[in-house]
Amino acid sequence: MIVGLLKESGNEQRIAFLPEIAARLVQQKVRVFVEKDAGLTAFQSNQLYEEAGAEIVSREEVLTKSDLLVQIGEPSPELVEQLGSDKIWLSQYNPLWNKNLVTQFLQKGITSFSMDSIPRTSRAQAMDVLSSMATVSGYKAVLEGASQLPNFFPMFMTAAGTIRPATVLVLGAGVAGLQAIAIARKLGAQVQAFDVRSAVKEEVMSLGARFVEVEGAKEDAAAGGYAVEQTEEFKQKQQQAINDHAAKADVVICTAQIPGRKAPVLLPKEAVERMKPGSVIVDLAASSGGNCELTQDNETVVHHGVKIIGQSNYPSLMPVDASKMYGKNVFNFLELLIADDGSLNLNFEDDIVAGTCITHQGEVLNSRVKSLFGELIDI
Amino acid sequence: MIVGLLKESGNEQRIAFLPEIAARLVQQKVRVFVEKDAGLTAFQSNQLYEEAGAEIVSREEVLTKSDLLVQIGEPSPELVEQLGSDKIWLSQYNPLWNKNLVTQFLQKGITSFSMDSIPRTSRAQAMDVLSSMATVSGYKAVLEGASQLPNFFPMFMTAAGTIRPATVLVLGAGVAGLQAIAIARKLGAQVQAFDVRSAVKEEVMSLGARFVEVEGAKEDAAAGGYAVEQTEEFKQKQQQAINDHAAKADVVICTAQIPGRKAPVLLPKEAVERMKPGSVIVDLAASSGGNCELTQDNETVVHHGVKIIGQSNYPSLMPVDASKMYGKNVFNFLELLIADDGSLNLNFEDDIVAGTCITHQGEVLNSRVKSLFGELIDI
Repeated sequence: MIVGLLKESGNEQRIAFLPEIAARLVQQKVRVFVEKDAGLTAFQSNQLYEEAGAEIVSREEVLTKSDLLVQIGEPSPELVEQLGSDKIWLSQYNPLWNKNLVTQFLQKGITSFSMDSIPRTSRAQAMDVLSSMATVSGYKAVLEGASQLPNFFPMFMTAAGTIRPATVLVLGAGVAGLQAIAIARKLGAQVQAFDVRSAVKEEVMSLGARFVEVEGAKEDAAAGGYAVEQTEEFKQKQQQAINDHAAKADVVICTAQIPGRKAPVLLPKEAVERMKPGSVIVDLAASSGGNCELTQDNETVVHHGVKIIGQSNYPSLMPVDASKMYGKNVFNFLELLIADDGSLNLNFEDDIVAGTCITHQGEVLNSRVKSLFGELIDI
Repeated sequence: MIVGLLKESGNEQRIAFLPEIAARLVQQKVRVFVEKDAGLTAFQSNQLYEEAGAEIVSREEVLTKSDLLVQIGEPSPELVEQLGSDKIWLSQYNPLWNKNLVTQFLQKGITSFSMDSIPRTSRAQAMDVLSSMATVSGYKAVLEGASQLPNFFPMFMTAAGTIRPATVLVLGAGVAGLQAIAIARKLGAQVQAFDVRSAVKEEVMSLGARFVEVEGAKEDAAAGGYAVEQTEEFKQKQQQAINDHAAKADVVICTAQIPGRKAPVLLPKEAVERMKPGSVIVDLAASSGGNCELTQDNETVVHHGVKIIGQSNYPSLMPVDASKMYGKNVFNFLELLIADDGSLNLNFEDDIVAGTCITHQGEVLNSRVKSLFGELIDI
């Protein structure tokens, strides 16, 4: 089969896989078509892809001749409109937020996979783009916070006196949050972390951070590692604890998200107004509404001297290693779809293939997407 | 006496001392006048200075009523023109580069001190603004490099494969360079450092970096800890070594400076062209010409995909802690000038007072300034 690698649109600087992955696909007897200049924003020249055995072709040619099309971002409706019904689409297209796109794939009969729907099982870990990209986001969020803060992160004991370490509060201790904790600790900050899932307490503490505890949280082991909605009473206690800690923090890093839902507001306006002028909030949940009430997606706003940075796509700002990780995830997934002779092998008996497949021959396969709005779709 | 704290001009965001230092001066029976809004860019309100016992007054009043005027940046000729000859001026005004300013102070009979001329003795360490600000610069340079690099600094071993650590090359292992090494190491990068002074090798190695050695350097213990000019032959060998290491580096941090001279060019155009696209050069020597041939002061240029950041004033971009350190240095120095009853005590028997004083009653006191152009000045 032919795998076609598309250039991203908008501000996205990553690419779905680097030349090293193109070479591995070629080894597996797959032909790789790469859209001309697709890798430039990630510092990967056409020549590097050619040296890896890929063919540099026009966008038109990638779209018409490839069997399987790969990119990172969600496709525009115009792009999907151009695709033949025999195509297989693979990107991270956020089906839980994109009912129109799911509908369009269904109507056209296109088989579509979304990398954000990879099951969170251990066999699928090597394909989990949410985890790998969250690693990038957690790392970059700390660098951003440290760069914007008018203070040092580490403590300094100098001839001219002592500089106190910065205090960083991390909201949500998933992959991004844990990474943020680790990097903030490496830079010498004092770190506190909050999460409704008490199971993460030990991980937080093992990284050298303090765990902010609020009694009475509801937990759900069946939620696939995500946090679940909480009661009103708990939310009030939680809010008080967060507000009190935020007031003393120099940097707050927001990472709490609930899949397919608006992100929980953990940092209301009042909490921001209690923070010190010069403090910084980095909100990784910006694209799903933000954990801070004042967050604007893709913007930096200043309120009472507190800088609030709404940035959900840090991976795009670190395009080489983010593309490297994304590409390895894609390759590990594609291996499930490639037969020994390099042809396509769509084996829906495989739980990862079935779980990641959103639409196939006019049906919604992914159970989460199906339960959210699968039956509401009228095709 | 009255110490007057002036608002900085231009883009400078620091202030020469924070309210905590105002309080300590007041304790020493000194009146402190603070120009209205002087602290705002460093997140210090007028109220905070008032609570510390300082008086918030107009710029006019600070300039006319204070005995000793303090700021960080060099004064404009217009400002010096306004000053009465009885005033004492204290800032970091770079007399070795500012013959006109020195001349103006001489002509007006103003007693001027420049914080960058504090002798580099151990007693003066607590007043050494070059060291404290270099600490800030080294820290910020690494954050900048890490933020701009399209790769991680640390190594990651993830389910989806291994990410190699970044390689950072630090040119010049003075205070800024050593700080940069320490922070880059904390962030998990592999670090190499180059310096013509072999005496710093052990310090470099103790921080976990590799020392790039070039045989045959000329050293001068009398140069006050600064590097000295080298022979042509040595420079060629040195250039080859630097070029080879830069070609493999992801980030190069340039910190080499020679006081009163143009910074040495250590990274010529050819070296930049051998670097990987996406690499980053942070040049702290930008304001004195830069260690990289392509550096533009206060600008970021991209050459062959390599980003070259010319920034010599990172302390201004971290104004709270930088002002805190600068202010402690200033206070420690001012203590030498304040008598028990809070009056002015200009004791030129003190080597720090004498060494830091550039002009006094129409004469150049500082020996380095005097030897550089003291006799060329015609008043």
